[in-house]
Amino acid sequence: MADTLSEFHKFRAEMNEEIHSSDHLGLKRFFALDHQAYEPGPLPTNTKELLGLVASAVLRCDDCITYHIVRCGEVGWKRAEIIDALNVALIVGGSIVIPHVRRAFARMREIPGLDS
Amino acid sequence: MADTLSEFHKFRAEMNEEIHSSDHLGLKRFFALDHQAYEPGPLPTNTKELLGLVASAVLRCDDCITYHIVRCGEVGWKRAEIIDALNVALIVGGSIVIPHVRRAFARMREIPGLDS
Amino acid sequence: MADTLSEFHKFRAEMNEEIHSSDHLGLKRFFALDHQAYEPGPLPTNTKELLGLVASAVLRCDDCITYHIVRCGEVGWKRAEIIDALNVALIVGGSIVIPHVRRAFARMREIPGLDS
Amino acid sequence: MADTLSEFHKFRAEMNEEIHSSDHLGLKRFFALDHQAYEPGPLPTNTKELLGLVASAVLRCDDCITYHIVRCGEVGWKRAEIIDALNVALIVGGSIVIPHVRRAFARMREIPGLDS
Amino acid sequence: MADTLSEFHKFRAEMNEEIHSSDHLGLKRFFALDHQAYEPGPLPTNTKELLGLVASAVLRCDDCITYHIVRCGEVGWKRAEIIDALNVALIVGGSIVIPHVRRAFARMREIPGLDS
Amino acid sequence: MADTLSEFHKFRAEMNEEIHSSDHLGLKRFFALDHQAYEPGPLPTNTKELLGLVASAVLRCDDCITYHIVRCGEVGWKRAEIIDALNVALIVGGSIVIPHVRRAFARMREIPGLDS
Repeated sequence: MADTLSEFHKFRAEMNEEIHSSDHLGLKRFFALDHQAYEPGPLPTNTKELLGLVASAVLRCDDCITYHIVRCGEVGWKRAEIIDALNVALIVGGSIVIPHVRRAFARMREIPGLDS
Repeated sequence: MADTLSEFHKFRAEMNEEIHSSDHLGLKRFFALDHQAYEPGPLPTNTKELLGLVASAVLRCDDCITYHIVRCGEVGWKRAEIIDALNVALIVGGSIVIPHVRRAFARMREIPGLDS
Repeated sequence: MADTLSEFHKFRAEMNEEIHSSDHLGLKRFFALDHQAYEPGPLPTNTKELLGLVASAVLRCDDCITYHIVRCGEVGWKRAEIIDALNVALIVGGSIVIPHVRRAFARMREIPGLDS
Repeated sequence: MADTLSEFHKFRAEMNEEIHSSDHLGLKRFFALDHQAYEPGPLPTNTKELLGLVASAVLRCDDCITYHIVRCGEVGWKRAEIIDALNVALIVGGSIVIPHVRRAFARMREIPGLDS
Repeated sequence: MADTLSEFHKFRAEMNEEIHSSDHLGLKRFFALDHQAYEPGPLPTNTKELLGLVASAVLRCDDCITYHIVRCGEVGWKRAEIIDALNVALIVGGSIVIPHVRRAFARMREIPGLDS
Repeated sequence: MADTLSEFHKFRAEMNEEIHSSDHLGLKRFFALDHQAYEPGPLPTNTKELLGLVASAVLRCDDCITYHIVRCGEVGWKRAEIIDALNVALIVGGSIVIPHVRRAFARMREIPGLDS
C-alpha cells in the first residue's frame, strides 16, 4: 500500500497516463467502461461507490479500497456508514479481510470530512 | 447450482438445521453474526443486501447470489436495480463473473415481483 | 458444470440473449469488449485464446474453461497443446485446480478434431 | 458437486486415469508430488489431511473438500473434529464458505464411522 | 508486508484499538469470534493455529501468515513443522503462493525459539 | 512490491537459497516442477511465459508478474505484446487487476530492450 494518500494519487495518475499513452484500445475502453459503471443509472452513484468499496474489500485490494473510500467521502458517505459497509465485507470475506480493514481505517484518517 | 429456487431453499433450510444441531458454538455464533450484519445500522438493510449481492457476485458464489437476489426482492429492489448492481460486480470482477451473471438472470425468472 | 457441451451452448446463448435484451448499456459494452479482447492485435487470436484458457483455469471457472477449450480447438490448437497449457495453470494454481483439469479432460472428449 | 460419494469416486478415478494416460510428464509429476505432500514428515499424515481440508474449504472447492473429508475419516478424525476444522475455515474465509460447509455436512452423512 | 515484526505488531495493535473504539458491534463481535475459533475445542489450539497458517497461506495474506507463524511458535510448533505445513499450502495453492513462502521464511528469522 | 527490480531479484535469490537449504524434499521438488513447466513441450517456452504472466495477473501477484515480465523480455516478447496479454488478463480479471497493471507498467520501465 502507498505510504500516504497523496503518494497513492500521484502514482495512480502517473501510471494511468502511461497506460493511456500506450494506445492500446482495449485498455482505454476498459478504463472508460470502469468509469461509466459508477455513473447514475437505475442505482445512484453513491450506492454504486459503496458497492465498489465492498467488492474491493472482499477481493482484498488495498489500492481499490483506498480509491473507493475517497470516492465514498466525495459522494457524501460518512465514516460510520463506510465502517458499516466494511462490516458486511468482513462477514462475507472472513478474517482474511481484517488486515485490509485495518489499512482502510488508517486511510480514513487521511480523508477530511468523513466525520463531519 | 440447485436446479430450482425451491430446491435451493429446501437444501439450505435442511442443512442449516443440521449445522445448528451439531451444537458447535462457533458455527452458531457465526450464523447469528452473519444474520446481524444485514440488520439496520448506519446503513439500512436494503443497501446492505445489495452489498451482499455484489460481494457474492465478485467472489462467484452462485448460492450466495441466489440468496441475496431473493432478499433484494424482499426488501424492495427492482430487476433493473439488481442488474445495475451486477454490472458493478462484472466490471470489478471481470469476465470470469459472466457465467454467474447468466445464472443470476436465470434465477431472477423464478422470483415474482422484481419487475412490478 | 452443464452435463453436455450442447447444453452448455444452449444455456449460454439463451442467457446471453436475455442479458442483452435487458438493455443495460454497461453489460452490453462489457460483452463487446470481452469479445474484442481476443481479436488479433499485437498478439494473434490463437495465442489469446490460450491465455484465456489458462486465466480461466487458475480462476477455476468450468464454464469459462469449456468456452476457451472449444475456441482453442476452433483456432487450431491440438489436444497436446491444450494439455500443456493446462499444466502451466496447474503449477501456478495448485492442486485446487485438479478437479477443473479433470472436467476439462472430460469436456475435450466432446470436441471433435482436437486429436487430428 | 457430484450427487453421491460413489459417483464422485468413479468420476475422479476415471479422469485421473485419463489424465495419466495423456503421458504429460508435468501432470504426472504434479499428481505424485500432491500425493507425497500428505505423507508423514515433520507433521504426521492425519494433521496434514486436516490442513488439506481447511485449505480446500477456504478456497471453496467442493470436490477437494469431499476428498479430504473422506481421507480425514480414514486417518481417524471424528465428525466433531472435522466440524471444528470447518469452523476455522469459516472464520478465516467468511460467509462465502457457508454453502460449502452445508455440502460438507451433507457429504459427511455418506461417510460411515465418523461418529463412532 | 511490514518491514519488521515489531512494526507489524505495533500497527496491528494500534489499528485493532482504533477499530474497537469505532464501537461497531458487528466488528467487535467478529474479532471476538475470530479469537474464539482458535481456543481449545474438539481440536486443540496448536492444531488450529496450524490450520490458520495454511488457510492464510493459500489465501495469500502476508499479515495473516506472519500472525499465525508467531502464534505457531508460541504454541510449540518448530520450524520444520511450520515448513511442512507451508509445503501443504504450496501444493494446494500453487506457485502463486511462492512469494508468500519466501516472506514467511524471512519472517521466521525474526522469531526466536523456532529452531530450539 | 519490491521498490526496484534489482531488490526484487536480490530478495528472491536470497530466499530461494534459504528455502532450498531447509532441505524439505517437497519444497525442492515443487520448485523444480515449477521450473520445468515453462520448458519447451508441445508449447514453446515463449508461449508458456506469456501464459504464466496472464495467470499471475489474474491471480494478482505482483512478484509473479514482475518475474514473468522479465522472462517474457528474455524470450523475445516486446512491450506491445506484453501489454496485449495484460489486456486479456484485465478483461478476464476485471478492474481489481488495474493496480497490478499499473505496477506492471512501472516495472517495464526497468527492463531494457522491451521496446527495441
